[in-house]
Amino acid sequence: MSVPERGFPTAEFEARLDRAQALMAGAGLDGILVMTEAEVRYFSGYQTLFWQSPTRPWFLFLPAKGKPVAVIPEIGAALMRRTWVEDIRTWSAPAPEDDGIGLLTDLLAPYAGRGAKIGLPKGHETQLRMPLGDYERLIAGLPGLEIADATPIIRGLRMVKSPREIEKIGHICAIASRTFARVPDFVHSGQPLEETFRAFRRACLEEGADDVPYLVGGADQGGYHDVISPPSSRPLQAGDILMLDTGSVFDGYFCDFDRNWAVGRADDASRRAYDVLWRATEAGLAAARPGVTCRDLFRAMQGVIAEYDTGPGDVGRLGHGLGMQLTEWPSHALFDETVLEANMVLTLEPSLSYGDGRIMVHEENIVVTDGAPVLLSTRAARDLPVIG
Amino acid sequence: MSVPERGFPTAEFEARLDRAQALMAGAGLDGILVMTEAEVRYFSGYQTLFWQSPTRPWFLFLPAKGKPVAVIPEIGAALMRRTWVEDIRTWSAPAPEDDGIGLLTDLLAPYAGRGAKIGLPKGHETQLRMPLGDYERLIAGLPGLEIADATPIIRGLRMVKSPREIEKIGHICAIASRTFARVPDFVHSGQPLEETFRAFRRACLEEGADDVPYLVGGADQGGYHDVISPPSSRPLQAGDILMLDTGSVFDGYFCDFDRNWAVGRADDASRRAYDVLWRATEAGLAAARPGVTCRDLFRAMQGVIAEYDTGPGDVGRLGHGLGMQLTEWPSHALFDETVLEANMVLTLEPSLSYGDGRIMVHEENIVVTDGAPVLLSTRAARDLPVIG
Repeated sequence: MSVPERGFPTAEFEARLDRAQALMAGAGLDGILVMTEAEVRYFSGYQTLFWQSPTRPWFLFLPAKGKPVAVIPEIGAALMRRTWVEDIRTWSAPAPEDDGIGLLTDLLAPYAGRGAKIGLPKGHETQLRMPLGDYERLIAGLPGLEIADATPIIRGLRMVKSPREIEKIGHICAIASRTFARVPDFVHSGQPLEETFRAFRRACLEEGADDVPYLVGGADQGGYHDVISPPSSRPLQAGDILMLDTGSVFDGYFCDFDRNWAVGRADDASRRAYDVLWRATEAGLAAARPGVTCRDLFRAMQGVIAEYDTGPGDVGRLGHGLGMQLTEWPSHALFDETVLEANMVLTLEPSLSYGDGRIMVHEENIVVTDGAPVLLSTRAARDLPVIG
Repeated sequence: MSVPERGFPTAEFEARLDRAQALMAGAGLDGILVMTEAEVRYFSGYQTLFWQSPTRPWFLFLPAKGKPVAVIPEIGAALMRRTWVEDIRTWSAPAPEDDGIGLLTDLLAPYAGRGAKIGLPKGHETQLRMPLGDYERLIAGLPGLEIADATPIIRGLRMVKSPREIEKIGHICAIASRTFARVPDFVHSGQPLEETFRAFRRACLEEGADDVPYLVGGADQGGYHDVISPPSSRPLQAGDILMLDTGSVFDGYFCDFDRNWAVGRADDASRRAYDVLWRATEAGLAAARPGVTCRDLFRAMQGVIAEYDTGPGDVGRLGHGLGMQLTEWPSHALFDETVLEANMVLTLEPSLSYGDGRIMVHEENIVVTDGAPVLLSTRAARDLPVIG
């Protein structure tokens, strides 16, 4: 197995910025301010787990012309200097009285002075990763500045992946696929579910994952009831249906898919649910072509699911985008009319409710191409596998 | 080793809410709205890794009287029903046209109608975990509602831990301490740093961690230069100073401390830096008493650091609070006049710059008591340890 080179060449960041600036020109924006982990990394290459500390805000400004400007805590300066960003402005953070607001005001005051319009991601799936009070103070100190929603621009850029991004996602999908294939070796009846989780994490690290930040699942007699819980200490037992769903990471890119197993024996209802969802995924694979909408993709899968779904388990959609975040735009849902393009990386995630409040979820990761989609995850077994 | 019971009894959530409501009454607040992982979990017990998906917002409203009200995506309803929260209002998310805003408006309209004041954490170390555009729309639809900053209330509550919280943090600190003690067994010269990280993660899981979400560090000849980078693939070599800093987790509670080693041999400058920081930590341990401020604690450590620090490495503070998040209020810094109280869990994190841009960081985790603080991490070795 060859391991993809880490990071990206400068040309990749130049291309991302070029596209952003072309879109800014079309939207009449004089710049875009981003502040979340994924967006700062996307345009700068700045990668650190330090974002887990909520204490300090981080800012990257993309001007309409020229290179990005970083406004960041001094603790991150050495790492930011290793990226392609040259204009790095720092302050000694944390500093509740002025956590970057003065520096941001200096940067943006000329824009405000001429009544410019800058973008900020403030739409669906975005967050304001700074104190709301600081944001209100920043805006109040920049009279004349117009703030527009930059979500459509960022969303449009990030949904379509580069070959190097696809290579990284493909690599972590292969690592997780190998880990799932080993589940029968390290999962067994009598094992507390939290030990199953710990064993999965260790195996996935052995297979080459940098980390396994997301691992959820469930196990219960004749089917699980919930797909986002932490593991209990209940031992697995014959008759359980077990599901594990992982977002593992390589070089800052996620996989996101799951697998289902029957422990000891498989009940008929669960076998039927599995069959329906396996075929729903096939319908998704057949439908995922450029020009098709996410809504179409939803309907293609839902058409099969309807054979068996008894409601009301409502996970809200049947898949989504995937990349630097566990879940990204778009959504395979009735509301989403995004048109598929080549090089979008997506999950197909059909789910259904059955029996007395049981739920089952299947998930695969694909990349859209000009022809049939390419599976990045190794396709799930055709029939519900039974393990010890 | 006994493993602490997971979760909390309902009485713990009742006590948290009682204290919040007493503080609300003092501040003239009619309720508090929270939406971040830590705050929703603190008041409800709702625990899931699903927060890693940025797609869906989650809300918990704490009224001035009565129990919390959850306004959450339907996918989380089953898990929320296992908490002590009874009033659970859900919608089919994601739904960009109305991701909970209608339900929140219904909930808050009576408050707006009577010109009530509700709190929202909008101060230092807080974030708005919902789209800014949705927040603006929510507020615009609630004329008459006054929004105050609830940060002082939330900060005051969360800084002082309960015995059960301290037990969980102590448990993960013990797990990480045992893992650090095993480092000489699984770290060796010639090992690429990314393999060192992977080996540490596996060992920490073996020792009983639920997860190792935060692991940073550095290694370089005669000292490392940066403390928040992901690992390189550079092999460790004789003369390196290696640092590993982990935020591992048990039942949703973090440890956060580091250890330093010399590979093969220790240079004099690094041995001196280590000695100074070890003694700076001792000064912090001696100073950490109820009634002392975080500023005092900073000065106690900085007084020792000044013996050797040559600047300008600026990590901004010399420690912080610890609990459900890797870093929490308060900060051991000149700006922070928080008065220490028994049952605060803190890091002591002295750092210094030396030589040609090298940096060294020490870190321990403690709980403040009525007398001397109790170390939750096993104290670092007196002298810089040399490993193979």
